[in-house]
Amino acid sequence: MRSISSSPPSSRHTLTLEPSGRTAAVPHGTWLVDALVSAGVVPDLPCGGEGTCGKCRVHCTDGAPQPTAEERAAIDAAELARGIRLACRHHLDGDLTVSVAEATSPGTAPILSRFAEAPATTVQPAVEKRYAELAPPTRGDERADLVRLEEALGPLDVDLDLLAALPGALRAAAFRGTAVLDGRRLVDFEAGDTRATHLAAALDVGTTTLAGTLLDAGTGRVLALATRLNPQTRFGDDVLSRIQFAAQDAASLARIQRVLLDDLNEMLTEMARAAAAPLRRIYTVTLAGNTTMEQLLLGLDPRYLGEVPFVPAAGRPVRTTAAALGLPVHPRAAVFVFPVIGGFVGGDVVGGLLATGLAERREPALLIDVGTNGEIVLAAGGRLTAAATAAGPAFEGARIRHGMRAAAGAIEQIAVDAGGDLVRETIGNAPARGLCGSALVDLAALLLRHGIVGPEGKLRAAEELAFAPPPLARRLVVAEGQPAFLVAEAAETADGRAILLTQRDVRELQLAAGAIRAGVQILLRRAGRTAGELGEVLVAGGFGNYIRRRSALRIGLLPPEIDPERIRFVGNAALAGARLAALSLAHQQAAAALAAACEHLDLATDPRFEVTFAEAMRFPDGPTHITEK
Amino acid sequence: MRSISSSPPSSRHTLTLEPSGRTAAVPHGTWLVDALVSAGVVPDLPCGGEGTCGKCRVHCTDGAPQPTAEERAAIDAAELARGIRLACRHHLDGDLTVSVAEATSPGTAPILSRFAEAPATTVQPAVEKRYAELAPPTRGDERADLVRLEEALGPLDVDLDLLAALPGALRAAAFRGTAVLDGRRLVDFEAGDTRATHLAAALDVGTTTLAGTLLDAGTGRVLALATRLNPQTRFGDDVLSRIQFAAQDAASLARIQRVLLDDLNEMLTEMARAAAAPLRRIYTVTLAGNTTMEQLLLGLDPRYLGEVPFVPAAGRPVRTTAAALGLPVHPRAAVFVFPVIGGFVGGDVVGGLLATGLAERREPALLIDVGTNGEIVLAAGGRLTAAATAAGPAFEGARIRHGMRAAAGAIEQIAVDAGGDLVRETIGNAPARGLCGSALVDLAALLLRHGIVGPEGKLRAAEELAFAPPPLARRLVVAEGQPAFLVAEAAETADGRAILLTQRDVRELQLAAGAIRAGVQILLRRAGRTAGELGEVLVAGGFGNYIRRRSALRIGLLPPEIDPERIRFVGNAALAGARLAALSLAHQQAAAALAAACEHLDLATDPRFEVTFAEAMRFPDGPTHITEK
Repeated sequence: MRSISSSPPSSRHTLTLEPSGRTAAVPHGTWLVDALVSAGVVPDLPCGGEGTCGKCRVHCTDGAPQPTAEERAAIDAAELARGIRLACRHHLDGDLTVSVAEATSPGTAPILSRFAEAPATTVQPAVEKRYAELAPPTRGDERADLVRLEEALGPLDVDLDLLAALPGALRAAAFRGTAVLDGRRLVDFEAGDTRATHLAAALDVGTTTLAGTLLDAGTGRVLALATRLNPQTRFGDDVLSRIQFAAQDAASLARIQRVLLDDLNEMLTEMARAAAAPLRRIYTVTLAGNTTMEQLLLGLDPRYLGEVPFVPAAGRPVRTTAAALGLPVHPRAAVFVFPVIGGFVGGDVVGGLLATGLAERREPALLIDVGTNGEIVLAAGGRLTAAATAAGPAFEGARIRHGMRAAAGAIEQIAVDAGGDLVRETIGNAPARGLCGSALVDLAALLLRHGIVGPEGKLRAAEELAFAPPPLARRLVVAEGQPAFLVAEAAETADGRAILLTQRDVRELQLAAGAIRAGVQILLRRAGRTAGELGEVLVAGGFGNYIRRRSALRIGLLPPEIDPERIRFVGNAALAGARLAALSLAHQQAAAALAAACEHLDLATDPRFEVTFAEAMRFPDGPTHITEK
Repeated sequence: MRSISSSPPSSRHTLTLEPSGRTAAVPHGTWLVDALVSAGVVPDLPCGGEGTCGKCRVHCTDGAPQPTAEERAAIDAAELARGIRLACRHHLDGDLTVSVAEATSPGTAPILSRFAEAPATTVQPAVEKRYAELAPPTRGDERADLVRLEEALGPLDVDLDLLAALPGALRAAAFRGTAVLDGRRLVDFEAGDTRATHLAAALDVGTTTLAGTLLDAGTGRVLALATRLNPQTRFGDDVLSRIQFAAQDAASLARIQRVLLDDLNEMLTEMARAAAAPLRRIYTVTLAGNTTMEQLLLGLDPRYLGEVPFVPAAGRPVRTTAAALGLPVHPRAAVFVFPVIGGFVGGDVVGGLLATGLAERREPALLIDVGTNGEIVLAAGGRLTAAATAAGPAFEGARIRHGMRAAAGAIEQIAVDAGGDLVRETIGNAPARGLCGSALVDLAALLLRHGIVGPEGKLRAAEELAFAPPPLARRLVVAEGQPAFLVAEAAETADGRAILLTQRDVRELQLAAGAIRAGVQILLRRAGRTAGELGEVLVAGGFGNYIRRRSALRIGLLPPEIDPERIRFVGNAALAGARLAALSLAHQQAAAALAAACEHLDLATDPRFEVTFAEAMRFPDGPTHITEK
């Protein structure tokens, strides 16, 4: 249970953040997590606020609350004494000052919005602008306003609000203006010729990160970019915890939808400001996310995504308006939400298919989206087959003792130097704070090569090692009752805590890599193909941009038969797909066709699933004690 | 200025109605008119509450407020002393008891909902119900809920609210249910086979009266009827006063829309209750009204209907949903608002064209809607031409000194008996309270026949009369400074006030009849036809059901060349048309086609308008001193 203060309520308390000095005044009894969010900081809550993962640690420098029993068990006495607490365990009952590492605050995480190569497209958006000069009414030509407009533009669908505004708008424009049209649907009638100002926004809604781009829908030019951490992280780091949270009741669903919409709205506002463009001139918003993110975004109860047989609500594209969804752009803007392929193969994967043109390749090709989950699509022999794996968010640093997102202070690359010891690179050259996905892959590959981890995934004891360089062997320790590998000494880190890779962490990586590899193997086998036949393996997702091909192959994230030269990291393909759909009606239609054409395979129904999965749980056999290239 | 009390405000005052005993508790300062409406009584406010028409007289039996200066001028001292006041002049500053004639309360007025002959139609409504049994999802068939439904029903338009409800609805129905479809638009998915319950409502929104019918959309059977006085009457009795009221500001438009919607909603609720049917099973609502009523109903600012060249907002049919409009039926019910022909030739006339099949006749034919205004459509040589006249509401009893609506106590028929004196018939055989439209036409015809009124419209003095029976001649008096004809002595009436037809009243009738006749003549002339060629003259509207053909011809409401046998009273043709549209998509399409095909003629632009109109201002020459048939 979270602590709830019994002290008498006063109206509000002030939460102060150090070093920024930012404050938030919140009502008595506010959950510290929410207070931090109010102050602009999104804590990590992989366990959904249950007090079990320890990822929401904060340093209370003034006004630290009494530690709870859970905290006494999870945090050592010295840390408790200097004010370390878990944000999820406390409700504010007084003013509080918290020292927050900058990396936890939004905007500093390098969230991927770049796509490897900007896909070329004919700019012909679903929403078009047409300038019209109408004859003003006269005695003798008393045609109704709408009839007059339709005689110039063809039949229109006009909602009641716009119909109410139309007579005033036509007269204010002296009957000369620009019609904004979404097919037959009239979005607006603007005075004068406004064809030059025509914007569209594309948003990628990831489980962990949000990325957006504002586009000139006339030229296709990118005007602005924005990124955020997905604020829903505080309800759990994976889709299942969020499904569970949202499925509790309508208020929970509304709440988890609201926090996401609030941040997307901030991103839209921020991009419009950066481009010095009015929000009202954004007439198109495309959104691509995994199935759960899309349902939460749309306010569609995701409970059936959390139950066998994991059925999505819509499947095909959802078209709605900004007003219906609550986006701050033109209220009648066309909102296009990407179609999904299955319960765990979502619109982000369809966006990737669209952006990479995977289906158009002659040789068999694979798209792997290593985001918070691992989704795979195989294109072979004119057919598309997709599957979701249960990879989990290990590659994003979650569920790893000292894992973290790719943010300042994250170790992102690890190698062995001439002296046989580790070389680390951290993002922003900051003091190390933890390990991000690419470093985890490097590290696991390195430990396998040096025989420190065996194929069965066990961290060997120092005395068992035959070939490992002594500096590495010396890093084998026992911590928290389990074997661990010391990545950085306490003295070397930002917060004075040693950074370890524990035995349990190795198991997590083994599971995650094995799940993806097993999925790839099952898809290939069902298509009668082998890994060696693959002409191209496209790895998408924020993670994929930073890992090293050989490390990925070494730990068995991909079948080792794949030629490393055929692996290509394509970056944020979901956002690239959303961008195409924002700029082209044909691409919206293509997205719908791709999703409909793509066969969805529930891996668990494959008769050889269990055997394949069990085999993939073993790290691949491979060369050991070879110095990293 | 209305009186505003300076006494200290208390929370609420009670208004008590006699003899019903009904009460309303209203805030201090409430306008007496609004308080009466709250208590269920709709006072007449032809002047829009300006204190000039005297139609809102009420008898305050307890707590009568001090009379205002306007009241002292307009009401004689004896009446003031016994508590007669004008409701529009007072705001409540204490409890008040008012004696109200039952005829002013809604529901007692015999508002016409009947159509002369029920038009036959194929029942095939725009909204259809289809029963579907879907395969429930399984592992191996994880198609999305919407995709599953679309594979059974074809592509659907589904709004976000329904999409959110769909997964739950499908499962609650065990995937067997009835889809309600408005074309491609999914209205609902109901558990089980509900095809037997499929309702539609048709509403006629007149300036003065509202009439509605609830239909079984499967069989076409009428399940219930409802009528009301249009509550907007308190903002003025004609469309122009309401346009002026609504055009003041957005709040006024919202208010005048709200009172109408509230009453329509009551009618829908009342009809559903009468038919023991749930409101949620009404999936279609059709609405026909004149252009101003339709715009006020839809919340479309009518200001441009009040200015040259009188341009409607929409023209063609408006299709929206019950939720968008705020009707209490199924929120996604299809609302069809009739197309209009011009600023003053509205959807009620289109409904009449649809119900009468006027356009399909071989001989030239005329449809005249004598409602609060007079609209005319001529069908000749395959063409339809429509025009509005400035007839005004005289035939509904407005702007006539002792005119009233066709309600209990209204004199509805007047003749001369063997002794040469008047015979009167009142509605409900109640003591006389005033003259309704048909009696006005009778009386004017009678006065013309006996030479008491000359063709120029002047009430002659008794000494000028040659042939008039002495009992009639004796009824010529001078009242309120003008010649008048005494219809009923003070002792003979319900409220002890004599009922008169004044010189000014005769002028009003002359104008109203002349306006319609001039319009008919201009339409005929432009089509190269004469009144004698008309195969049929259809007179629609509440008024039209009660007048006598020869009286109408005598006073020149219709050109005297028309053969009386060819005149047919068709009753509430607008409601009959709305009913057809509720039962048949083809009729909705026909209504749109009729409105688009009908040429709209602005009479004032006809080069001979002024001459024709001036000529029509004279009553037709005709036989005098002939005893009424």
